[in-house]
Amino acid sequence: MKIARFRSNGRIAYGVIQGDEVVEIRGSIYTRFRMTDTKFPIQEVTFLPPTEPTEMWAPGLNFANHLEFAAGVLGDENPTVPVHPEPWIKARGALTGTGEPIILPIGSSGDVHYEGEAVAIIGKTCRRVTPEEATKCILGYTCGNDVSDRTWQHDDWTFWRAKGADTFAPVGPWIDTDVDPQKLEMIVRLNGKEVQHGHTEDMLFSFAEIVSYISQQVTLRPGDMVFSGSTGVTVALKPGDVVEVEIPGIGILTNPVEAEAVG
Amino acid sequence: MKIARFRSNGRIAYGVIQGDEVVEIRGSIYTRFRMTDTKFPIQEVTFLPPTEPTEMWAPGLNFANHLEFAAGVLGDENPTVPVHPEPWIKARGALTGTGEPIILPIGSSGDVHYEGEAVAIIGKTCRRVTPEEATKCILGYTCGNDVSDRTWQHDDWTFWRAKGADTFAPVGPWIDTDVDPQKLEMIVRLNGKEVQHGHTEDMLFSFAEIVSYISQQVTLRPGDMVFSGSTGVTVALKPGDVVEVEIPGIGILTNPVEAEAVG
Repeated sequence: MKIARFRSNGRIAYGVIQGDEVVEIRGSIYTRFRMTDTKFPIQEVTFLPPTEPTEMWAPGLNFANHLEFAAGVLGDENPTVPVHPEPWIKARGALTGTGEPIILPIGSSGDVHYEGEAVAIIGKTCRRVTPEEATKCILGYTCGNDVSDRTWQHDDWTFWRAKGADTFAPVGPWIDTDVDPQKLEMIVRLNGKEVQHGHTEDMLFSFAEIVSYISQQVTLRPGDMVFSGSTGVTVALKPGDVVEVEIPGIGILTNPVEAEAVG
Repeated sequence: MKIARFRSNGRIAYGVIQGDEVVEIRGSIYTRFRMTDTKFPIQEVTFLPPTEPTEMWAPGLNFANHLEFAAGVLGDENPTVPVHPEPWIKARGALTGTGEPIILPIGSSGDVHYEGEAVAIIGKTCRRVTPEEATKCILGYTCGNDVSDRTWQHDDWTFWRAKGADTFAPVGPWIDTDVDPQKLEMIVRLNGKEVQHGHTEDMLFSFAEIVSYISQQVTLRPGDMVFSGSTGVTVALKPGDVVEVEIPGIGILTNPVEAEAVG
């Protein structure tokens, strides 16, 4: 099932995708809901980020083929392979939806990259869960773009703006509850041309392992998001670009790229 | 004026402190509100964290007299004085109120320290504000405890659990809208004995400068919290301790310390 959060005629609702329609639901996506008779053509609604998370989590360096590149960005001469997940927090305010622009900030050096990823959506409050239990705490999966300013990533003490500037967290278009999380292809196209192609089976730590690990010290809440980490080597975005993150079976997250307006 | 969020008889409300009573208000603390006729004795309500922030921000190393100590914790031989604020994000789920226990996690090495701080509460959505404008975006100030596991702070790549484990962010008891933010004493008492005494006039970057700096890349929202940073040298908490953060003129944030229950 594909569960979407959307706006139509100024009203925000949840719905289930059926063919080329979204069927509005009543109730909670985390507990119980039922279909209503209200339907909208997909083309006529605005899809929003699928949840309003308390927190967005991501694992540091979770793909071996991203290690050398990321170490170069950070200025580490001897890249370290993490021995357990190394979570960091992506600023909550950066969250944006499919179709919305990624804004290249005025203060940026311009070295802003896409990172196409899969994102787990937490469905139940969980604390101190095992990886097996963690699987049951995840409602489903969607596409995410961990947009990253490489200069700030290198220069700052934390990723607060490198990965947390406004619009740097496109997530969507909807949550798929039926996919196998470690069997997902993650494809990025820049202006229609494939520029990144990863697979979640190559994650150093699986979604279940990351969620379990975080939950040892921090309570995860319904709607919280857990990114997969990025793969390989990326290149810079420029104004006028269109970047798509596709996970076949789930859907496509599409964002145009704009320069920040002055004043 | 002192504005508090509290629970009474299972109901959550905002109120204004008048003498030894809290007078319930109606409306929004960020826009307009009015007093009601409903009053409670202070002793009979439970004070909650004064807002539900989107994000909690803190500046890395914001007091010169904390520099050497913090560098030792992090294993830096040559501590760096920040040339601009170096914000980091404190995990939102760690937020807790006065009177609630600070829980020492099972997985911790036990080296969990208090850090008594002042906390600015954002009152208006702000983006790209100057320090002068930032002052007008701040509703008021309260007490905070940036509880920190020094072993995790040293070993992990980020502060996700070192400063973000559940209960590691006591904030309260209420927001004071009338204080001079750079003229605040910050006193910590451990079991009644003073163990930390700082002053916000010693902040390397003022609240207005930190808010302005963050707002260049990230939109701050009503209720967001900005910590001052910590001063000096701290010591470890142990089960049974009571830690108080007092800012004279604002109030006292009091938290007992407990070991996490097994199982």
